[in-house]
Amino acid sequence: MKNKAITERDVDFAKWYTDIIRSAKLAEYSNVKGCVILEPNGYAIWENMQHILDKEFKRLGHQNVYMPLFIPESLLNKEKEHVEGFAPEVAWVTHGGSDELEERMCIRPTSETLFCDYYRNAISSYRDLPKLYNQWCNVVRWEKETRPFLRTREFLWQEGHTVHETAKEAEAETHQMLDVYKRFFEDYLAIPVVVGKKTEKEKFAGAEYSLTVEALMYNGVCLQSGTSHYFGQKFSKAFDITFTNRENKLEYPYQTSWGTTTRMIGGLIMVHSDDNGLVLPPKIAPIKVVIIPIKNEDKLLTEANKIADLLSIADIKTIVDNSDKSAGFKFAEQEVNGIPIRIEIGERELEQNKVVAVRRDNREKQEIILNDDIVSNINNIMETMQNDMFKRAEERNKTKTHICKSLDEVANIMKTTPGFIKAMWCEREECETKMKEIGGIKSRCIPLEQESVADKCIFCDKEANTLVVWGIQY
Amino acid sequence: MKNKAITERDVDFAKWYTDIIRSAKLAEYSNVKGCVILEPNGYAIWENMQHILDKEFKRLGHQNVYMPLFIPESLLNKEKEHVEGFAPEVAWVTHGGSDELEERMCIRPTSETLFCDYYRNAISSYRDLPKLYNQWCNVVRWEKETRPFLRTREFLWQEGHTVHETAKEAEAETHQMLDVYKRFFEDYLAIPVVVGKKTEKEKFAGAEYSLTVEALMYNGVCLQSGTSHYFGQKFSKAFDITFTNRENKLEYPYQTSWGTTTRMIGGLIMVHSDDNGLVLPPKIAPIKVVIIPIKNEDKLLTEANKIADLLSIADIKTIVDNSDKSAGFKFAEQEVNGIPIRIEIGERELEQNKVVAVRRDNREKQEIILNDDIVSNINNIMETMQNDMFKRAEERNKTKTHICKSLDEVANIMKTTPGFIKAMWCEREECETKMKEIGGIKSRCIPLEQESVADKCIFCDKEANTLVVWGIQY
Repeated sequence: MKNKAITERDVDFAKWYTDIIRSAKLAEYSNVKGCVILEPNGYAIWENMQHILDKEFKRLGHQNVYMPLFIPESLLNKEKEHVEGFAPEVAWVTHGGSDELEERMCIRPTSETLFCDYYRNAISSYRDLPKLYNQWCNVVRWEKETRPFLRTREFLWQEGHTVHETAKEAEAETHQMLDVYKRFFEDYLAIPVVVGKKTEKEKFAGAEYSLTVEALMYNGVCLQSGTSHYFGQKFSKAFDITFTNRENKLEYPYQTSWGTTTRMIGGLIMVHSDDNGLVLPPKIAPIKVVIIPIKNEDKLLTEANKIADLLSIADIKTIVDNSDKSAGFKFAEQEVNGIPIRIEIGERELEQNKVVAVRRDNREKQEIILNDDIVSNINNIMETMQNDMFKRAEERNKTKTHICKSLDEVANIMKTTPGFIKAMWCEREECETKMKEIGGIKSRCIPLEQESVADKCIFCDKEANTLVVWGIQY
Repeated sequence: MKNKAITERDVDFAKWYTDIIRSAKLAEYSNVKGCVILEPNGYAIWENMQHILDKEFKRLGHQNVYMPLFIPESLLNKEKEHVEGFAPEVAWVTHGGSDELEERMCIRPTSETLFCDYYRNAISSYRDLPKLYNQWCNVVRWEKETRPFLRTREFLWQEGHTVHETAKEAEAETHQMLDVYKRFFEDYLAIPVVVGKKTEKEKFAGAEYSLTVEALMYNGVCLQSGTSHYFGQKFSKAFDITFTNRENKLEYPYQTSWGTTTRMIGGLIMVHSDDNGLVLPPKIAPIKVVIIPIKNEDKLLTEANKIADLLSIADIKTIVDNSDKSAGFKFAEQEVNGIPIRIEIGERELEQNKVVAVRRDNREKQEIILNDDIVSNINNIMETMQNDMFKRAEERNKTKTHICKSLDEVANIMKTTPGFIKAMWCEREECETKMKEIGGIKSRCIPLEQESVADKCIFCDKEANTLVVWGIQY
């Protein structure tokens, strides 16, 4: 039953990861260095992610806009920390046609500067606030090492950029959007996450603070999966955005930004997939059900189409595989592609007025009586599968989350079962940096739900009240 | 009643056009030369366009993908006509971070080269065909003169790229997609179009032939609004894409591409809007109904919300304007923003158990009895309005379409009522070029529905069997 195109996950995780991407036809390398091509199966997952998130953004009052791709160099330079963070990794446009540009422009690595430049003119009174804008677009960061979905020179994302009258409102937005991301990961992607604040060292270039959603992959490596930043008045001061407040005084407004990317697809793969291919939580899978007649006989095909119609009407995206391949080959293909449920229609079962449904995640088989309500049956299986996948990931996270009180402990654990390390920290950067000496571990976040696992900092002997989650990052 | 922020359409059309865009908050100039910002009202129209077209593409079996933003120079250079057409107007990326690139890359002006590069590896047998891919993305063309929506250095579009076993299939696809565009323009945008073939001179760089959807604006200027290209084997040969056909022989496949852009928003404005602001066909309007209580009194507001709920449940996007402005101000604002229907709720009418619905396009008022089915009432008004708008544009096109038999006739007409000129042509480029001498008129297309309006070419005395539609282009 072993799929020969896929390296075993426990043998070579990195190779397994790219094998899954290639076998399930999610993405393909391109001849443009560091950029991948999102193929139909991969892009369809992104479309589902967009659809769900976009609906939620709009429900919360956000509106979509579109800003230019280019940032003139002088505009990028306006906020000091921001330019220092991004300038080393931007692509520069220097020529239009055969003419050299008067001022070179970078391709947006993120659009704070463009939004601020727009807001400066668009905002003059508290009546213009809040501005709750979001955009879906491509961004470019000139990375040296790239990996499909996780780190590519160009990637797709959404970036929210909001402006508010008060710090309180802006901070509430920052936390609200973190919560939107957390719910999206847990409820749709079936990925449990730790939410918290980035340390000063790890925060977004130009933010007062950054909140983050951190997920743990099968191999114990961590993935920063979504971030929500509070800017305070840093950008509004740098870009001279002012508004007349309710007391008729000129004031700088308070801003946020928040984003998620196609990287989430990488997270999905590394949390749920197995040696037989992609495994997708039903709620995010583009195709929910594949119906496979054991033989391509009229009677079986008729029944297959009948069931497909019933499911399609109920908005359960279903395909019938009536291709000229063996049933076994089709089963394997469904497994590689991560279609959550396969319905097998065999002659013998059909005579007994039933079909067999097989879950992708655990291959559990279940007979479905055809007189029953097949839509509810399938919906129930999908719901159970969705919940089971989340629970399984949660259980694994527990076994890979370790409380540590000494650096030796950390080093030992990272050798055997890497994962989230919970350890106390005195909040000094020199201590934070020491963790990096142990195989590239970094602070992931200061969890919003704090607990005290020791009295002292794991690095020095200072008293420590801050719990930090640490780990190796993608 | 005159809106002072909007120049009169008949006085200065170009100024009127940009006034509409600014007043209805569709787009804003940016500090990035030649690029605009799509504001929420403008982007929402684009989202509706995307939604409708995307659904239709998928219904016809197309799948979405995403290709890189960058094209290495060597890749752009592979198809001779193509590079000659596009190289003069591309933006070049020369540096990544602080390093100069080994090979400079342009930002895609269109993605034929990237798709072909991908197809070369993805296709090997007739079993891999057809490939019916589409992508929604941004493209960049370094234009000297720009105008919001009509011509900007960066714009948003969709580009379909398909590969087929036979010329027949590929040609059928080219025509099918032209038809999709035609139906979209007529049924959704209420814009009548002429469909036809571009002349050799005007076809897409690298195509065997190009089909086009041409629309006529209020001022008689023409807008190329969507194109569908047949490539034959030109690109497959240039990029060495081959497949084993059903006779087990190696063959070059046949390709197409087709696209529409945010330019369509410009067309919508210039066909339908008036001196009071934007006018949108109900089927494409992001918000269909605004309910305005004549006074902000509880009783009126309660009724407003009740109606809004009824309409929203029926998927008619409705807002209630309960802001602190006068009713007259709100009326004007609805007109500027192009919301198709306004429902006025006044105390006197409410006592008689009715409200007033006002159509945006002709300001026609209609009483609606509240006991009646308000959803069907509003749907009927929207349907009538949609049809009326199409008919009005069609009528106008008739008065602006002229059959000409001499260049003098053309010159005279262009002075008084410019529009579509129908004239016979001998198919020689030297004749085609002569038309340009009359105030920049160019061939728009050779209509698919041919008729004979004269025996001889309008330029020379040669016999001519080809009817061409000519006009001034945006």
